[in-house]
Amino acid sequence: MFIAKVTGSVISTQKVESMVGQKLLIVEPYRLESKKRESLETTGRTFIAVDMLGAGPGDYVLIVQGSSARMTPETKPLPIDCAIIGIVDQAHVAEACVYSREDEMEESSPKKTPQKKSK
Amino acid sequence: MFIAKVTGSVISTQKVESMVGQKLLIVEPYRLESKKRESLETTGRTFIAVDMLGAGPGDYVLIVQGSSARMTPETKPLPIDCAIIGIVDQAHVAEACVYSREDEMEESSPKKTPQKKSK
Amino acid sequence: MFIAKVTGSVISTQKVESMVGQKLLIVEPYRLESKKRESLETTGRTFIAVDMLGAGPGDYVLIVQGSSARMTPETKPLPIDCAIIGIVDQAHVAEACVYSREDEMEESSPKKTPQKKSK
Amino acid sequence: MFIAKVTGSVISTQKVESMVGQKLLIVEPYRLESKKRESLETTGRTFIAVDMLGAGPGDYVLIVQGSSARMTPETKPLPIDCAIIGIVDQAHVAEACVYSREDEMEESSPKKTPQKKSK
Amino acid sequence: MFIAKVTGSVISTQKVESMVGQKLLIVEPYRLESKKRESLETTGRTFIAVDMLGAGPGDYVLIVQGSSARMTPETKPLPIDCAIIGIVDQAHVAEACVYSREDEMEESSPKKTPQKKSK
Repeated sequence: MFIAKVTGSVISTQKVESMVGQKLLIVEPYRLESKKRESLETTGRTFIAVDMLGAGPGDYVLIVQGSSARMTPETKPLPIDCAIIGIVDQAHVAEACVYSREDEMEESSPKKTPQKKSK
Repeated sequence: MFIAKVTGSVISTQKVESMVGQKLLIVEPYRLESKKRESLETTGRTFIAVDMLGAGPGDYVLIVQGSSARMTPETKPLPIDCAIIGIVDQAHVAEACVYSREDEMEESSPKKTPQKKSK
Repeated sequence: MFIAKVTGSVISTQKVESMVGQKLLIVEPYRLESKKRESLETTGRTFIAVDMLGAGPGDYVLIVQGSSARMTPETKPLPIDCAIIGIVDQAHVAEACVYSREDEMEESSPKKTPQKKSK
Repeated sequence: MFIAKVTGSVISTQKVESMVGQKLLIVEPYRLESKKRESLETTGRTFIAVDMLGAGPGDYVLIVQGSSARMTPETKPLPIDCAIIGIVDQAHVAEACVYSREDEMEESSPKKTPQKKSK
Repeated sequence: MFIAKVTGSVISTQKVESMVGQKLLIVEPYRLESKKRESLETTGRTFIAVDMLGAGPGDYVLIVQGSSARMTPETKPLPIDCAIIGIVDQAHVAEACVYSREDEMEESSPKKTPQKKSK
């Protein structure tokens, strides 16, 4: 599995019948930034994943690939090789918090009272 | 899964028996252009995919790989690892429409009355 | 799947019992040359594939990978992840013929009467 | 399989039901350093693996990918493609010991009596 | 499949129960050297493979990946994605012998009477 950021979505009307109604998200795999090792950075790749968790743009998610993407009750019969199996709250490397969903959300929708970032 | 552009086709007469009659298309995986993030660009890779949706050159399609390519009624018994499971109408990233089938078609077959591009 | 050129062969006497008698070919994956887009070029990678179609050096073949390589009557019980499922006659991209088996053969075994290349 | 170093962990509360209670570790694949060939170095990639062996930060582990990650009693029903199946004690290349868990531990928690490194 | 050179081994005492007793070798995938095309060269990657053929350091072996690595009587129940299914005696590309086990062995353990290399 790997961590990816949801950055968009795909609309397809002509598709294999079993795929009707499936939500298709554009996800970009992220990796640990190699110098400071304090944040995640994009790998520059673009995947399309099926979502059943209600993830949306800006979310960091856990992606599973291959036949394992079909190991959930909802995805079992689908011709898919990439699915979102979790929404990431936090990722830690050594002593650093390299990603925190809470911080990310504060940044995109700032509130009046500034808050000290959680570790 | 990933988005790819159909750019060609392959003819093979000597092949495994179950593959007789299967349409083989050349598809090139696309990714989000990394600077402006407003369009898709080729990855430079070349795959061969089985098509059952009537896709043709110029179409952007949704590609599934591995054993999942056999998860449709038509592809179940085939020795294939790459299939087209959808034709992409639109792909959106952030606020931008990075691909629209309608726009693409207008460009390749321009009409007399110029139309403002849909968002 | 992808297109590869058969460039060699491998001999192995000590091997898993089910592999006895299997023909092992060296194949090099090819991709569309990215500038002119009128020919195929090597990716520089080297794979070993099982052949059941009688392919030989110089042939361009269709390669399937993973568990799908076992989806033919002959390969079903084999511990293989790479098989030749077709010999490519022609590959077309846009208006150009990027590969033609007939042309290739004329070049390697020239005849007295020069012939205009088929499109 | 490949060797990876455990460098962090991931917290996800919204996830596929079968994943509840699974420990998710950040692992970085390592390869042999190519010049001196006496140590392992990171490949710069970042994977998320399920752990059932009690591995922790700093451990070098054996990673299995794909459907094989589900070939243990605990992981059989999980939608995962990456699991830790062993903790590496030592890795040898030619005459050199390129990794020793004992040495690594001495370095991170030095004792009073210096010891000659085991071969 | 691909050709790899066995260059080392891994010791792991804490591991998934079914892996107890399995021999783990460090293998480095090789590819055809691209200029002269007369020898094999390392790709710089490092894999860990299960061995049941008695391969040892210096041997060039045939590696199978993914679920196909479990398609032998011995590996069927194992959580592995990489196995050695053959020891390579010779590899030929065009007219050249790019690898010969016999030659390799003569070089590493030279005998008194120099012998002309076999083709």
